[in-house]
Amino acid sequence: MPLNQSIVLDNRPAAHASVDNFKLIQADTPPLQDGQVLVQHHYLSLDPYMRGRMNDSKSYAAPQPLGEVMIGGTAGVVVESRHPKFKVGDTVVGMGGWQLYSVVDGHAPGLLRRVDTTHVPLSHYLGAVGMPGVTAWYGLVKIIAPQAGETVTVSAASGAVGSAYGALAKARGCRVVGIAGGPDKCDYVVKRLGFDACIDYKQHGDYLSLSKALREACPNGIDGHFENVGGMVLDAVMLRTNAFARIAVCGMIAGYDGSPLHMTHPALILVNRLKIQGFIVSEHMEVWPEALQELGNLVGRGQLCPRESVVQGLAAAPEAFLGLLKGKNFGKQLVQLV
Amino acid sequence: MPLNQSIVLDNRPAAHASVDNFKLIQADTPPLQDGQVLVQHHYLSLDPYMRGRMNDSKSYAAPQPLGEVMIGGTAGVVVESRHPKFKVGDTVVGMGGWQLYSVVDGHAPGLLRRVDTTHVPLSHYLGAVGMPGVTAWYGLVKIIAPQAGETVTVSAASGAVGSAYGALAKARGCRVVGIAGGPDKCDYVVKRLGFDACIDYKQHGDYLSLSKALREACPNGIDGHFENVGGMVLDAVMLRTNAFARIAVCGMIAGYDGSPLHMTHPALILVNRLKIQGFIVSEHMEVWPEALQELGNLVGRGQLCPRESVVQGLAAAPEAFLGLLKGKNFGKQLVQLV
Repeated sequence: MPLNQSIVLDNRPAAHASVDNFKLIQADTPPLQDGQVLVQHHYLSLDPYMRGRMNDSKSYAAPQPLGEVMIGGTAGVVVESRHPKFKVGDTVVGMGGWQLYSVVDGHAPGLLRRVDTTHVPLSHYLGAVGMPGVTAWYGLVKIIAPQAGETVTVSAASGAVGSAYGALAKARGCRVVGIAGGPDKCDYVVKRLGFDACIDYKQHGDYLSLSKALREACPNGIDGHFENVGGMVLDAVMLRTNAFARIAVCGMIAGYDGSPLHMTHPALILVNRLKIQGFIVSEHMEVWPEALQELGNLVGRGQLCPRESVVQGLAAAPEAFLGLLKGKNFGKQLVQLV
Repeated sequence: MPLNQSIVLDNRPAAHASVDNFKLIQADTPPLQDGQVLVQHHYLSLDPYMRGRMNDSKSYAAPQPLGEVMIGGTAGVVVESRHPKFKVGDTVVGMGGWQLYSVVDGHAPGLLRRVDTTHVPLSHYLGAVGMPGVTAWYGLVKIIAPQAGETVTVSAASGAVGSAYGALAKARGCRVVGIAGGPDKCDYVVKRLGFDACIDYKQHGDYLSLSKALREACPNGIDGHFENVGGMVLDAVMLRTNAFARIAVCGMIAGYDGSPLHMTHPALILVNRLKIQGFIVSEHMEVWPEALQELGNLVGRGQLCPRESVVQGLAAAPEAFLGLLKGKNFGKQLVQLV
C-alpha cells in the first residue's frame, strides 16, 4: 500500500489561527476491505468554513476533532477498488481531507462522486462546478431569487463563489456589482468575469465611504446581496438596499478568525423590509443536481472562467489556508498534490 | 360645524423627541362635500411607528410634514354623512390623526371601515383587532410560521402586538415566552395573557445575563422570535436560537429615538442559519380580512383579553406618546377623546 501523508489539527487557535495549529503525519494506507475504494488526491480544496471547525464552540458543524485529519473537499483518481461501481482510473470528487490518499466506502451515498473531465477540468469540480458554485447558486436562486433588471452584489467577488455568482446573475439579466480587495482582483472581476462593476474595498477606510462607492456603482440601489465576508462590507451594502432586498449570508470571514464583528445598522432590516438569511449548502443536497448542471454548462460554454490559486504539495496547505482567511488568494484556493 | 382641535408636528426632534415638537391648534371643521363623512373620534391610537415619521430621513414612509396633523389610527362615530354607505351613528375606524374630528372621503377604499361593537369593544379595533393585532398575526403566521411544539418569543410582550401574538401562538400549540419590563407586566403576561413564561429584561444588565434567563425559560431553544424592540433583547434572543429559527422584525423602538443600536453577533445568522425579516403590516393588506377574523374570534371567546393604557383628552397625547417610547405604557396606548 502507498505511504500516506496527512495534516491533522494538533491544537486549537487561541485567537488567530497559525501554522502551529497543524501537524503533518505519515502512515501506511490500510488494506482495502470489500466495498472500499482507494483514491489518490490530485487537488485539495481550501475553504473558509474550515476555520469555524477549528474552534471548540457551537457552530453548524461539529468541531474538527484534535489529532484527526482536517476535513476538506478533494478531487482525484481511483488507484485501487473493491467496489463494482468504481474502477481504477475513474476521476472522482469527495471529502477526502488534507491528505494524499483516502479510503472511501463506495456504498455510502454522496461520499464519492464520479465526474466527467471531457469539458470541465478536474480541479473545477472543487470550485465553480462544486461546492462553491452550488453555494452561489443556492444563495442567488433560492434566497435572492432576482428578477431580470435587478441589481445584485457580492463580496469576495473574485473568489470561487463570487465568480460563479456573477455568471449566474448575468445569465438572469441582472446588473452585477462585485466587491473585492485590490485593483488586480477588481480588474479581473470586470474584465474576465463579466461583472458590470467592481469596488475595491481596500480604497475605503470605513463603511460610509464604501457605501458612497456602492451608490455610484448601483444607481438603482441594491436588490440582492450575497455576503461572504461580513463586517464593513455588509454595513455598507445594507445602507444601499432597496425596499424588499434579500441578503444571503454564507460567510462571515472576518468573524471566523476571532475578531469581533457587529452589524452597525440593524434597524435597516425594518426600514427597508429586508430579508437576511443564512444558509449552508450541504444542508440543501436536493438542489445540487440542478445547480451543477447549470454551472457545468456555463463553464463548458466559456461563460464562467474561474480563476484558481494553486500551491504545490500537502505541506503548503496550512500557510495557503491562513492566506485565504486574509484574502491573499486570487480565485479558488487549491493545493495540488500530484 | 363643530370646532376641531388638532395636534401638528411643529418641529423635528434633534435626538430625543419632546413635547415641544408638537403644537395644539384649533379650527372649524369644514362643511362636507358630496361623498364625505364627518367622524368624531372617540379613541386615538399611539404607536411606535410615529416616532420614525417625525424624522426627516429615509424611512419606509414619507416623513410627517411639518405643520400638518400627526398621522394616527382612530376609532369613532359618524356624526354627519354625505355618503350613502355611512350613516350617523355608525362606529368606524380609520386614520383620522391626532384630532377630535376628521372629514373622510367615503369613496376612497380602505380609508374608513365600519366595525361591529356587539362582541368587541370599539377601542379594541385600534389594538388586538386592528393594526397591532394584524401585525402580530403577519409576523407569526407568515414569517415565523411555527409548528406546534416549537418555542416562540416576543419582546414588549405586554403591549398590543405582544398580547395578540401570545394568543395566536398558543392557539397554534406553541410554547410562548414573553420579554417585558418590570414584574407587574411580567405577571400580567403570564397570568392574564396566558404566556408560558415571561422574563423581566430590567432585571438584566446586559444581553448575556438576559440570554441566560432565556435559556431557562426556553429549555428547547428558540424557533421563532418577534422583535418589537431591538438592541439587547435581540442580541440575547439570537444567542438562544435553534437552527433555522425565524425572526420577524417589526420594531426597533430603541433606535427610533436616536440612540445608536447595533447587532452584536450577526455571525449567528450564518451559524444558526437564521432568517431575519423586516415587515410593515400596511404593505400586506391582503392578509387583513383573515387575520381580523381570527383576532375577533379570539377576543369574542375571551382567549385574548388585551389591556389598554388610556389617557384622557387630546392635549395628553404628546406626553403619552413619549411615555410609550420609553415603555411607560402598560398595554395598548390610547387617548380617549369622548
